[in-house]
Amino acid sequence: MSTTAKKPGGGDLGGDERTNAPGAGAASAAAAGRDDSDGAVPAELVSRSGSAPRAGAASGASGATAPKRRAGRPKTSVLSRRLILETGLRLIDEVGAHGVGMRAIAKELGVRPSALYNHVAGQDELVAGVRELVSDRIPVDMFAREPWDVALAEWAVGYRRTFAAHPPTIALLAVLPLSEDSVTSRMYDTVIAALMRGGWPADRALTLMVALESFILGSALDLAADDDMLDPGPRTDVPAFSEAYRSRAERLAARGEGPAEASFQLGLRALFTGFRAEYAGLGLAPAEAGSRPRR
Amino acid sequence: MSTTAKKPGGGDLGGDERTNAPGAGAASAAAAGRDDSDGAVPAELVSRSGSAPRAGAASGASGATAPKRRAGRPKTSVLSRRLILETGLRLIDEVGAHGVGMRAIAKELGVRPSALYNHVAGQDELVAGVRELVSDRIPVDMFAREPWDVALAEWAVGYRRTFAAHPPTIALLAVLPLSEDSVTSRMYDTVIAALMRGGWPADRALTLMVALESFILGSALDLAADDDMLDPGPRTDVPAFSEAYRSRAERLAARGEGPAEASFQLGLRALFTGFRAEYAGLGLAPAEAGSRPRR
Repeated sequence: MSTTAKKPGGGDLGGDERTNAPGAGAASAAAAGRDDSDGAVPAELVSRSGSAPRAGAASGASGATAPKRRAGRPKTSVLSRRLILETGLRLIDEVGAHGVGMRAIAKELGVRPSALYNHVAGQDELVAGVRELVSDRIPVDMFAREPWDVALAEWAVGYRRTFAAHPPTIALLAVLPLSEDSVTSRMYDTVIAALMRGGWPADRALTLMVALESFILGSALDLAADDDMLDPGPRTDVPAFSEAYRSRAERLAARGEGPAEASFQLGLRALFTGFRAEYAGLGLAPAEAGSRPRR
Repeated sequence: MSTTAKKPGGGDLGGDERTNAPGAGAASAAAAGRDDSDGAVPAELVSRSGSAPRAGAASGASGATAPKRRAGRPKTSVLSRRLILETGLRLIDEVGAHGVGMRAIAKELGVRPSALYNHVAGQDELVAGVRELVSDRIPVDMFAREPWDVALAEWAVGYRRTFAAHPPTIALLAVLPLSEDSVTSRMYDTVIAALMRGGWPADRALTLMVALESFILGSALDLAADDDMLDPGPRTDVPAFSEAYRSRAERLAARGEGPAEASFQLGLRALFTGFRAEYAGLGLAPAEAGSRPRR
């Protein structure tokens, strides 16, 4: 992540003023900040039962490392949906998605597995909830301010950064169905509404968002990998690849940029060149002024 | 996969003749055929020890369902690196990457775990080998025939389809370092050499390939998911998303196209519009005629 922190903005998405749009840096900084340090979770993810008045405080304190508790029956006010999901996310980060179930979380929290079921119905809901926990940290505030293309590019930057901080959740996000109260659906609604205000037909807006999301998730996997993952080694039978690898390392070292960041920026720039060309080719224009975002 | 089979080609990458380039359909058909039915693996992946003269025939027969054998010491000629890796791939497809180790494969093949180590050094080499098995099924023959952009788009189609047939391997591919004898490195060498013949500087060729690969892997994850994954359900608080979902379903039903395919085609078209714009903006041109691909 250190290399990406050097270029926090939406990046050079076309060589124009967008490169240094203040919104881009702010949004990305917010993404990094929320992702690294802020355990804020919306009310609807906290304590389904509503019986844990101090749920926020309890889980806030345990965001990074939940306190080890002796086995036994804890005060019910300590347990909350949020604490369970945050513990699940932490375990997923530590051991991978496959090792994390209700039993493992109960053990980690020092409670009986049965105690968790007041807050989370089971494994499927647990996994979906953890996905939501991560999704909800993706900034969407730029959609209320910026034109569709600028906002969408900023969203992509924050989205990738948020999921790259939790690599095992990437594959989960990509294949899990949305629950009926999913906060991810609200994020999608914000994105699609902005694209529709920008003039995109509803169906095309969704298709475009999913295409961008595929690039984001693949790029998050790439960012999560080691920088030298593609090192071909000392072999002599792949001369073009070896030359490219050496040449890229030299170029990027000179620019202080990581390889994953360079590919993400190149791909994002290409995608948005194409999206804008498609937009122009379809003769699209923003919806009436009343529904345009506030500037 | 059924929806994608209806559009086997490189797709509408710009509304020109490329849409129906014969190479696109042939390459994709080859991808589908190899991926679905052909267990062909290059010699270098078969039998490191070279002591199993019938390795090809033995593993060919067991590609889909390895025969259950009684525990005990099998004839050594039955075991091969290829059989072990193919069994690993099948188990990964069935139970996910986390459940597959040397022990599980030995059990499946009815041999002692120690018998495997003559062919595969351990878990890391096993996982890398399975990744290679899948990578090697991605067609690259178009790079010898087509201009860089046409070939690259066809490669993307075959690459996505190959990995979408084995979803648990997608995350493996994205984060595993390349071994020194990796066939994946040879695929990358073919791609980068073609881009360099097309005029791309070596470092930029690699950066571009990785960007495209991120989109491909994300799209493979999307293709592996259920078509109704994004159904927001009956909720009323995400009106734009709900409208887009309904509208997209109607449009795609009329066209007989799956949602993952629609997003892949839109994203691929956008990326290549951008790649071509970048190529033109940099003033690039193919290398001297002698090194151009044969037409």
